[in-house]
Amino acid sequence: MPIRINPAVAAIPYGDRKKLKTLVAGREGLADLMSGNPCTPMPPFIRDRLRESLDSGLARYTDYWGLAELRRRLSAWLQSECGVEADPEESLIITHGVQEALYVVFRTVLRAGDQVLIPSPHYANYLLNTVACGAEPVFVPLAEDEGFIPDIRRLRSLITPRARLLVFSNPNNPLGVVWPEQILRELAETAREHDLLVVADEIYRDFAAPGPPRSIASLPGMKERTFTCSGFSKSCFMMGLRVGYLAGPAEAVFHIKQLHYLITLCPSLPGQVAALAALECPREQLEPLHREYRETLEHLYRGVAALPGVSCVRPGGSFYVFPNLRRCGRSSLELAVELVEQAGVMTLPGTEFGSLGEGYLRLSVAAGRKQVEEGLGRLTRYMEERGPG
Amino acid sequence: MPIRINPAVAAIPYGDRKKLKTLVAGREGLADLMSGNPCTPMPPFIRDRLRESLDSGLARYTDYWGLAELRRRLSAWLQSECGVEADPEESLIITHGVQEALYVVFRTVLRAGDQVLIPSPHYANYLLNTVACGAEPVFVPLAEDEGFIPDIRRLRSLITPRARLLVFSNPNNPLGVVWPEQILRELAETAREHDLLVVADEIYRDFAAPGPPRSIASLPGMKERTFTCSGFSKSCFMMGLRVGYLAGPAEAVFHIKQLHYLITLCPSLPGQVAALAALECPREQLEPLHREYRETLEHLYRGVAALPGVSCVRPGGSFYVFPNLRRCGRSSLELAVELVEQAGVMTLPGTEFGSLGEGYLRLSVAAGRKQVEEGLGRLTRYMEERGPG
Repeated sequence: MPIRINPAVAAIPYGDRKKLKTLVAGREGLADLMSGNPCTPMPPFIRDRLRESLDSGLARYTDYWGLAELRRRLSAWLQSECGVEADPEESLIITHGVQEALYVVFRTVLRAGDQVLIPSPHYANYLLNTVACGAEPVFVPLAEDEGFIPDIRRLRSLITPRARLLVFSNPNNPLGVVWPEQILRELAETAREHDLLVVADEIYRDFAAPGPPRSIASLPGMKERTFTCSGFSKSCFMMGLRVGYLAGPAEAVFHIKQLHYLITLCPSLPGQVAALAALECPREQLEPLHREYRETLEHLYRGVAALPGVSCVRPGGSFYVFPNLRRCGRSSLELAVELVEQAGVMTLPGTEFGSLGEGYLRLSVAAGRKQVEEGLGRLTRYMEERGPG
Repeated sequence: MPIRINPAVAAIPYGDRKKLKTLVAGREGLADLMSGNPCTPMPPFIRDRLRESLDSGLARYTDYWGLAELRRRLSAWLQSECGVEADPEESLIITHGVQEALYVVFRTVLRAGDQVLIPSPHYANYLLNTVACGAEPVFVPLAEDEGFIPDIRRLRSLITPRARLLVFSNPNNPLGVVWPEQILRELAETAREHDLLVVADEIYRDFAAPGPPRSIASLPGMKERTFTCSGFSKSCFMMGLRVGYLAGPAEAVFHIKQLHYLITLCPSLPGQVAALAALECPREQLEPLHREYRETLEHLYRGVAALPGVSCVRPGGSFYVFPNLRRCGRSSLELAVELVEQAGVMTLPGTEFGSLGEGYLRLSVAAGRKQVEEGLGRLTRYMEERGPG
């Protein structure tokens, strides 16, 4: 007899990324504008701390919610750097990256039938988590000609009594844009007025120019309803150490903690050692790296925006640009496949970020400057040869 | 307005362990028979591999399901050591310890209203996971005078059409016993007959004497319905690295994979590096450690069984004995509190493992030989002074 699967879990969609990975497997010399997985080593300061931590040879379970010292320091850092208040005992837990943080928040505060407001194109996991809870996504279209900034009236018109949660990333993956403080204030006002919870994914915070965006949880009346999910994976190039955090209202975190325990027992020790180091890492080991990524992103943007028939919103942070290639007359997936086969460039179709991404591609700088220059050159030659559509 | 919590998540119970931790906080010099968190360093072979892995400084995301090489080697190891067939692409994933493995299996194959058969006293998470899925536990009592071996007729009498899953650990936490092959064969027959899925938690495999128990997944007709959850956390003293695995039928693992991705993105890189090293770790770095734990467990058993008015099933593996102290005339929790306050010994009440644990304590050797000797001495003096009840 076939094994029956929980319907909410069975409904979690697989994207096209797998197809693309199969397509690119075995092809040599492709230029990588696809990956969100940087090739940059961790700063030496963090590596040294990890090395030292091996001296004792002990790798014991830690506190379920993360090392007490890490939570204390992180709480102080959140207050001073982000203006976010989060009691280290009641409102803050260390997670297996933002990925786990998003899952445990969604699963704890959503019930079947609740609606989740997702400004879209969106990071796919916001939808996956919604579906995995038996909840319903309500996409709030972000328009290219509005710079992918949410139109608050449009958002408000989509709110029903079932709306429960608003989720977004700022800086934005895949759009590359940073929402300004005024928009965050309007989102906050809307959330307060309609009693919405907010999940703010701030993992790309350190890659914004000129400086990090405002945290919505720092706005008046927002810490009671906002879950801030972030970490050092991207900032310190320690993605594989799988450590992040979640700060939110104590009344919900009380239950989130027990779900987090049930899923993880505790976060990984090396990740926590590295997170402690990240909080003390000398700026001179990090800022040049962040600057390099920002400059590469600007370079990619300029190159892409100059392509014939292509339009692109200028990015303000993250690793990504999200150009419009609709004039090529192909679907995003067809175009991404064609670019692999005919131009030797890996990209992600915009539809990996929802159907509102149709006609777009996500291009990434994560693979580094050389890959970006090579990819951009190939893309330029390809587009010039084909003409606009 | 208060934040509404998902009812299944709100129902995940907190145990008394938190109360006990509060009770013991700040008390110095307690003997530790409570912790399941060993103080033994990782073998040098594994530490060296972890050190080498820091040379490149790279800490990138890995394959979502775990490094392909790790899955390949683990698959070969499962086949040769455990007789368990698990295709490395279709049936095997690397998880954040057994903890995550249990969660993703339960959440994927259970629906609200399904029943889960839990031989009890039981590892608390089997119940927590059941509740977190909106499913219903059916406890199968394990009797001390039957050596905590399941009575198959009793088990069968409890099976209803809603029964879906049987879960157990072998060697057993908290009972310390190892179920013999004949019982596993009868459990397998029962599962096949009633179309039950089986979750086998084999994390204490290497601590069984004289050798590891049979894996139920290796019995005929069982790989189609068994999820084997295990890892190297205990065997190699790398609990804090949070790495384990799950082997099961491909048709379910297909969906489990996507839930695993949604929760973790990928397992931690240091954990996977250590797991690869664990598969190659020289026996002479591990066997003496395992032997020491087994000897300490035997020592603890003999000491406890000799206490006035105490009975105890002889352990065959794991870190635990589960003595009956009913004659003391107190509840397990009262006794555990009294032992902290009056004898300076930390233990866990049997009720942390379900209400069928009332009257018992779980005593652990994880804190090492010295703690065990000290704890046993204090326990003996305390019991002799008080007399049996």
